Amino acid sequence: MNGQNPVFIPGPTNIPDRLRLAMAAQTWDHRAPDFVDVFHPILEDAKQVFGTTKGKVITFPASGTGGWEAAVTNCLNPGDTVLISRYGMFSHKWILLCQDHGLNVEIIEAEWGEGAQADRFEAALTADKSHRIKAVLATHNETATGVRSDIGAIRAAIDASDHPAMLFVDGVSSIGSMPFEMDAWGVDVAVAGSQKGFMLPTGMAICGVSEKALAACDAAACTRSFFDFKQMAAANAGGGYPYTPPVNLLLGLRESLDMLTAEGLDNVYARHARLAEGVRRAVSAWGMSLVAKRPELYSETVSAIYVPEGFDSDALTNHAYDTYGVSFGVGLGEMAGKAFRIGHLGSLTPTMALSGLATIEMCMADLNYPIELGAGVAAAQEYYRTGAPLAMAAE
Amino acid sequence: MNGQNPVFIPGPTNIPDRLRLAMAAQTWDHRAPDFVDVFHPILEDAKQVFGTTKGKVITFPASGTGGWEAAVTNCLNPGDTVLISRYGMFSHKWILLCQDHGLNVEIIEAEWGEGAQADRFEAALTADKSHRIKAVLATHNETATGVRSDIGAIRAAIDASDHPAMLFVDGVSSIGSMPFEMDAWGVDVAVAGSQKGFMLPTGMAICGVSEKALAACDAAACTRSFFDFKQMAAANAGGGYPYTPPVNLLLGLRESLDMLTAEGLDNVYARHARLAEGVRRAVSAWGMSLVAKRPELYSETVSAIYVPEGFDSDALTNHAYDTYGVSFGVGLGEMAGKAFRIGHLGSLTPTMALSGLATIEMCMADLNYPIELGAGVAAAQEYYRTGAPLAMAAE
Amino acid sequence: MNGQNPVFIPGPTNIPDRLRLAMAAQTWDHRAPDFVDVFHPILEDAKQVFGTTKGKVITFPASGTGGWEAAVTNCLNPGDTVLISRYGMFSHKWILLCQDHGLNVEIIEAEWGEGAQADRFEAALTADKSHRIKAVLATHNETATGVRSDIGAIRAAIDASDHPAMLFVDGVSSIGSMPFEMDAWGVDVAVAGSQKGFMLPTGMAICGVSEKALAACDAAACTRSFFDFKQMAAANAGGGYPYTPPVNLLLGLRESLDMLTAEGLDNVYARHARLAEGVRRAVSAWGMSLVAKRPELYSETVSAIYVPEGFDSDALTNHAYDTYGVSFGVGLGEMAGKAFRIGHLGSLTPTMALSGLATIEMCMADLNYPIELGAGVAAAQEYYRTGAPLAMAAE
Amino acid sequence: MNGQNPVFIPGPTNIPDRLRLAMAAQTWDHRAPDFVDVFHPILEDAKQVFGTTKGKVITFPASGTGGWEAAVTNCLNPGDTVLISRYGMFSHKWILLCQDHGLNVEIIEAEWGEGAQADRFEAALTADKSHRIKAVLATHNETATGVRSDIGAIRAAIDASDHPAMLFVDGVSSIGSMPFEMDAWGVDVAVAGSQKGFMLPTGMAICGVSEKALAACDAAACTRSFFDFKQMAAANAGGGYPYTPPVNLLLGLRESLDMLTAEGLDNVYARHARLAEGVRRAVSAWGMSLVAKRPELYSETVSAIYVPEGFDSDALTNHAYDTYGVSFGVGLGEMAGKAFRIGHLGSLTPTMALSGLATIEMCMADLNYPIELGAGVAAAQEYYRTGAPLAMAAE
Repeated sequence: MNGQNPVFIPGPTNIPDRLRLAMAAQTWDHRAPDFVDVFHPILEDAKQVFGTTKGKVITFPASGTGGWEAAVTNCLNPGDTVLISRYGMFSHKWILLCQDHGLNVEIIEAEWGEGAQADRFEAALTADKSHRIKAVLATHNETATGVRSDIGAIRAAIDASDHPAMLFVDGVSSIGSMPFEMDAWGVDVAVAGSQKGFMLPTGMAICGVSEKALAACDAAACTRSFFDFKQMAAANAGGGYPYTPPVNLLLGLRESLDMLTAEGLDNVYARHARLAEGVRRAVSAWGMSLVAKRPELYSETVSAIYVPEGFDSDALTNHAYDTYGVSFGVGLGEMAGKAFRIGHLGSLTPTMALSGLATIEMCMADLNYPIELGAGVAAAQEYYRTGAPLAMAAE
Repeated sequence: MNGQNPVFIPGPTNIPDRLRLAMAAQTWDHRAPDFVDVFHPILEDAKQVFGTTKGKVITFPASGTGGWEAAVTNCLNPGDTVLISRYGMFSHKWILLCQDHGLNVEIIEAEWGEGAQADRFEAALTADKSHRIKAVLATHNETATGVRSDIGAIRAAIDASDHPAMLFVDGVSSIGSMPFEMDAWGVDVAVAGSQKGFMLPTGMAICGVSEKALAACDAAACTRSFFDFKQMAAANAGGGYPYTPPVNLLLGLRESLDMLTAEGLDNVYARHARLAEGVRRAVSAWGMSLVAKRPELYSETVSAIYVPEGFDSDALTNHAYDTYGVSFGVGLGEMAGKAFRIGHLGSLTPTMALSGLATIEMCMADLNYPIELGAGVAAAQEYYRTGAPLAMAAE
Repeated sequence: MNGQNPVFIPGPTNIPDRLRLAMAAQTWDHRAPDFVDVFHPILEDAKQVFGTTKGKVITFPASGTGGWEAAVTNCLNPGDTVLISRYGMFSHKWILLCQDHGLNVEIIEAEWGEGAQADRFEAALTADKSHRIKAVLATHNETATGVRSDIGAIRAAIDASDHPAMLFVDGVSSIGSMPFEMDAWGVDVAVAGSQKGFMLPTGMAICGVSEKALAACDAAACTRSFFDFKQMAAANAGGGYPYTPPVNLLLGLRESLDMLTAEGLDNVYARHARLAEGVRRAVSAWGMSLVAKRPELYSETVSAIYVPEGFDSDALTNHAYDTYGVSFGVGLGEMAGKAFRIGHLGSLTPTMALSGLATIEMCMADLNYPIELGAGVAAAQEYYRTGAPLAMAAE
Repeated sequence: MNGQNPVFIPGPTNIPDRLRLAMAAQTWDHRAPDFVDVFHPILEDAKQVFGTTKGKVITFPASGTGGWEAAVTNCLNPGDTVLISRYGMFSHKWILLCQDHGLNVEIIEAEWGEGAQADRFEAALTADKSHRIKAVLATHNETATGVRSDIGAIRAAIDASDHPAMLFVDGVSSIGSMPFEMDAWGVDVAVAGSQKGFMLPTGMAICGVSEKALAACDAAACTRSFFDFKQMAAANAGGGYPYTPPVNLLLGLRESLDMLTAEGLDNVYARHARLAEGVRRAVSAWGMSLVAKRPELYSETVSAIYVPEGFDSDALTNHAYDTYGVSFGVGLGEMAGKAFRIGHLGSLTPTMALSGLATIEMCMADLNYPIELGAGVAAAQEYYRTGAPLAMAAE
């Protein structure tokens, strides 16, 4: 660990001092009345990040994977069919988790670099006359490939096929960084994690849960206890958790929400878009290409970048860490060795982003990539320097 | 939250500065080779706290309840029978969790204040000629009543009845504070939590898992994914987690293990015993009695204390918080209103313990309890001041 | 260092987490415009703690001793006569400092345990027909003996003798903890330190400076540069320091002022008075006596307590530190071996104070003092528990 | 304050987390025996950073300016002549301070951008047959102009003129970052500050004091008390300070020394040289020039860079702060409006340095400087990427 340089992994992000220090609080009795006074507004205020007024926000001490498990076990029965598209490591892992829980997973296979294709979902749902499919699962932002899918289009596909399936969305690497409209998109469970847009350490799954999803819990026979929505919602209503709550992470979330609100969510999203576009211009200047196949699929939080033929992306990221003390994302699964990733989410500024670009360029030069030093940086600078300044909320 | 006074809840404990600051680390790429170098020894070094050399330590970002879930879902099949004794809120809650997971729970009901009675376990196991019972569950330290059970005696009962059942132990409020001998007691899964003896914030379940338990996973059909032992163990062996690890909590655990080792586990246990006995002498000086029925049941981490007839323990703990800014444990379940609890675990010294006793005495006087101010303090002082000094490990 | 137990030295005090974390800020460019925006109000808001609206607050990166030096070197000429009473180690040290700077010090010798006797000041000033005395120096709270002097009475003495001498007051261990009325008492320079009532680490001298004192600077020929009031005031007016400012201590002072304001200065003073009286009742219950000779001299921030004949106060404080990990103040100068001190200032609650009393009682018992365990605690409890609750400002 | 981006002012530097957290320690009784055990080695271990085995290290709670004052007031008499060269704001300010203390300052005026010219010192000293000059003062690294002077050559000049003058050196912005050889260069007092090479917040002057300088104190009649070397040295020998020590800064210094030692002082110096040279190559690629007139004068800790004719350096640094949230050093004194400064000292990596260069390039482009985006970055990258990796000591 270098501790001086920013990290450029697609989460956990760089953690603002405000959040690190807020979480360094001494123990606060979770049964104390003033803790309850703090706890309730956290769940309320988090709703806006999910784009919901009608749903609930439910938190678990877990990683985002715990949120995936909560989504499927609370609302489904063993043997139920779920429809999901596989186009990266995280959609793949969610599939495995569903299978672990005895669900029948109908998989729309797509090339890595593609997103959730609404037309194929619509076809599958339309074909499902018997409504065997109980839920559609979609990975909003596939962290392995830097692909953002159009969840609104998936919703439209469900509606067009007049299908009653619920919609569960993995928004772990999008929520808090890219616009998310849970209510408008009719999302039943949206899963986020503390360590991405919320800029906190890993340790909390944060779920947006629709009224429909909560209503579905009673009949859902998948076994669950730790991740039970209704037990949690009931305890939350009484000011607590069904078990010991992760108080320090909740205090961090309080501060994180304050930071996001102070900056303004629209400004947060605009900043991410701006940072991302600068990185993409650097990629273009290097003559490289993104794993994401088309601009409308480009993620605002992470870019997966193919290295040229004959180069090994793992050698690149290892070199960056070993020589310069900077972490970039490795290629995962099918992308191993072929692509590296630059995370550009959370607590990040153009200045920080440029340091990542400048560093990876040095690595490329060290490893004889056919790039010109400074070229990608210049392309990003040209983009970052125009337009209105986009400062992070003042600390 | 007062933030100045110690807390006297039975966990989360007072968090030493060392741990708070260690956890305030900036993001460390969990895939970086030097993180892996740090991660492995954490799991190895934690074994000694569980008293195991043969088992593995497996951690989850969760609360202790997640560890309960891991224990039963990894090693059992739906419909399997487990044998457990109910004598407090936490044994009760583990029963509910088992039922949530479709297990058949055979309950030995015991009065609150009792512990796990080995003879009744032996009788039940001996009667189970068909070996329907697949696991015996025991709450080592029932936090609601301040009762410590003799796990070695439970093991002896299992052996005496020549029964093949596994043994799962809830050591959430004992491990790291009281001697725990996983190997010697033949425990198959032992569950601890970060926020008790490890003195960290809530957020990590820490499980000791025997070879037998790991071997049982393959045939265990209870559904699980997030809490899957074998997926976690396999990922751990490769230096990681099956999902994003809670790096900051792991760094906290590293520091916690260093503190426990520096003090010496035997000294840690002796300090807890000493602190506990001082509190009990105060209770006696007040003319009150413990919920725990007999000395051999007395917990070294928490004392549940009956208030006199006609008094309301909730009024007492509320008064302590509202008037003096000090948190004590409330009476839970059957003990609501009848008993309050003094947590005396984790990062605590005689000086701190005396401040709790002095404060609760003021509360009692304010509420017209028939006690003499200073009486309990004096009894504790007399005990604390004799014998060898027992300092916490230097920070 | 134990790090768990409170300290009971008369400063540096226990530092609230809020202040420790506020001071852990990353570097903030001291020439940045937004730092200037923060800096100005700090100096303004500090005025109320000094009880001045007409004077200025001037800070130096130094200890309180630097403030003493600033007071005398900015306003006096070499060879000038100053009048001061010596009744403890800190008044003694200020005398030495004056002598180091070539001043002629006229000393009113008083027994340790006495304060500044206004009648003797009046006599000396009245006798000084030629107005040879240029300044009267007074130690508001003599930390070595736990004696508070009546500064208003000194002012009255100056006025009664119709003497033009300036009045410099050492308020290091009083300002921020006890009422201080710089304007009302006609104080020309009041010296405070960050590590007492402001609850910060040592490192900043904080001076209240009257218009008269500032006007005197021009003609004052004592050499000075680092501690020059006018250079500092001019730089402050421009938003800076004449040299690099101690930004992190200033940020700590900002937070400290916010805490004092949130609690309310009157409440802060009342809390100190209450804590002090409880300690004094314990002393009385032990059958011991204070160094301070009369109730009107009793300090609200520190009590110096004579140990019985035949006992060694250093053995007592050493034992407390070595055996229980708790720091009390040693006897200084004439009081070495004869008296120990309990600091009861800054971030402190009754609960914390009782832990100090309980600990020192154990020490006394260990060393065979003729006291009864719990007796002092009970006396303090009886006092602390009555009347309105006096909580520290919520963190 | 942005808090996310590095600062590029020439001190205070970016503060490593290790130091910030070490300084967040709770109060440690400065009279406790274990504090003394920690305190002594700090002073001892600091000696190697000064390059002395024969001298003492003496610390004051102050800024570097306090160290200047200590140097001249401890070793000189009022009216003594000191010889100093003025070539920047900090040499200028030391002159003013000397004059404040009644010294007769003989000034060798040099153009800003020049350093201390040994031949002119030698001429002046040779001419001083009566040895009226009692001390030679030299600013090792003039922070305002980015000029490093050759202190060894000044020593040679003193020796060549066979002059008994003492040698006082301002090493505030060099010590800990550039080689400093107090013994070899015959420096009598060397002044450093916590906020530069030691990477701590402002608040401590750290002085290296030769035996000769200490011996000179007795006869030195300049008034002093707070900054008295002998009082401090005597108190240090007893394990303390003559007043309350700045414990938290001392704990920070302990950690700082550990970091410097872990990296190795030679590696620290090599890293600074490397970072500086990269910055200079960027300057060259921009077609700009340094204030420092010749390569042998180039500072390894700060580069002062002339902006092109017709541009205003203040507009540049203001734009950087307002638009990108990044602090650079402004032009001081004669350089106001003409030059800006890039600090490249303390806790800094190539990655961080590149982020500063990339940011200032954006500012230049925004303000229509005749530079090409990426050009300076590329020049620095080319330099940083070659040769052995120079990582900061692992945190």
